[in-house]
Amino acid sequence: MNATTELTATVISPEEIRKHWQSHRGLTRRLIEAFPEDQFFTFSIGGMRPFSELIAELNRIAASAATGLPTGNWHSESYASATTPATKAEVLALWDNVTTAIDSNWPLMTLERFHETDKAFGMYEGVVYSLLLYFIDNEIHHRGQAYVYFRALGLEPVPFWDRN
Amino acid sequence: MNATTELTATVISPEEIRKHWQSHRGLTRRLIEAFPEDQFFTFSIGGMRPFSELIAELNRIAASAATGLPTGNWHSESYASATTPATKAEVLALWDNVTTAIDSNWPLMTLERFHETDKAFGMYEGVVYSLLLYFIDNEIHHRGQAYVYFRALGLEPVPFWDRN
Repeated sequence: MNATTELTATVISPEEIRKHWQSHRGLTRRLIEAFPEDQFFTFSIGGMRPFSELIAELNRIAASAATGLPTGNWHSESYASATTPATKAEVLALWDNVTTAIDSNWPLMTLERFHETDKAFGMYEGVVYSLLLYFIDNEIHHRGQAYVYFRALGLEPVPFWDRN
Repeated sequence: MNATTELTATVISPEEIRKHWQSHRGLTRRLIEAFPEDQFFTFSIGGMRPFSELIAELNRIAASAATGLPTGNWHSESYASATTPATKAEVLALWDNVTTAIDSNWPLMTLERFHETDKAFGMYEGVVYSLLLYFIDNEIHHRGQAYVYFRALGLEPVPFWDRN
C-alpha cells in the first residue's frame, strides 16, 4: 500500500482503480471457466472472433500493461509475438500470471504517472489514466460479447454485477 | 468548471471522468443511430432483450444518475415508472436530454461526493465513484452485446475505439 490509498478527497485512488480493474478481471476469469471448452475455441456469431481469441487479446494487453502502465516498458516485442494458448487451462494459467504481475508492479504507479503521456505497446499514444480505462473498457466490451455467445449457446452466464 | 478540474496529481479529475462518461455515451448514441429502425425493437439472440430494451435501461439509469450522483436525488419514482419510447427518434431525443442533464448537474459533483455512500435509485448501496463506474461499465457491457447484434445482422458497427 502506498500513501495515496489514504486519499479521500479524490475521484478514485490508485488502490481503488487497481481493485476495480482486478474485479473486472475476476469476473472475466469466471466467465472463461464457465465457457464450454470446445466452444471456447470455435463458437462465433456473425464472423466475429471466438471467445478464445478475444481473451488472447485481453491477455496480451494486460500482460503488456502490467509493466507498461507503471514503468513505460510495454515489452512491445513479446506483445506482438504472443501466441494464443491451445487449452482453457493454459489460458487461465496465463491469466493468473498477469493478475499477479499487475499487482506486483502496481506500487510503482505514482499519482503523477496517471497523467503522463505514453505510447501503449509502443504504438498508441495517450495519457496513462486514459490508457488504463481503455484496457478496462475493452475487456468489458469483449466480455459483453461473450455473454451473447453464452446466451446463444443456451447457457446462463455468471452475473455481470457480481465482481466479488 | 470547478477548481478540481485543475488537479494534475490525481488518478482522474471530475472533469476527465465526466468526459469519459460522455464519450462513451456519444459512441452508444452513434450505435443507436446506425441500428436499423425495425430491428432495433425486435432483433434478439438467445432470448436476450432487443437493443431498444437495453437502451431503455441505460436511459433510465443515466436520467436518474444525472441528479442522483451529484445530489442524492435519484427521482426513484419516475425511474421505476419510465416507459420505453416507441421510435428511435424518441429514444435519441430522450438520450440527448439526459446528456444535457448530466452536464448541467455535473458542477455539483464535489471531490468529497465521490466517496460518499448513497443508494442508487433508492435501492443499490455503494460509494458514489463506484456507482458511476458501474453505470459506465453497464453501458459498455450492453453496447458490446449490441455489437454482436450488428454483426449477426451482417452489418459493420461503428468502431469501438472512436469516442470523438
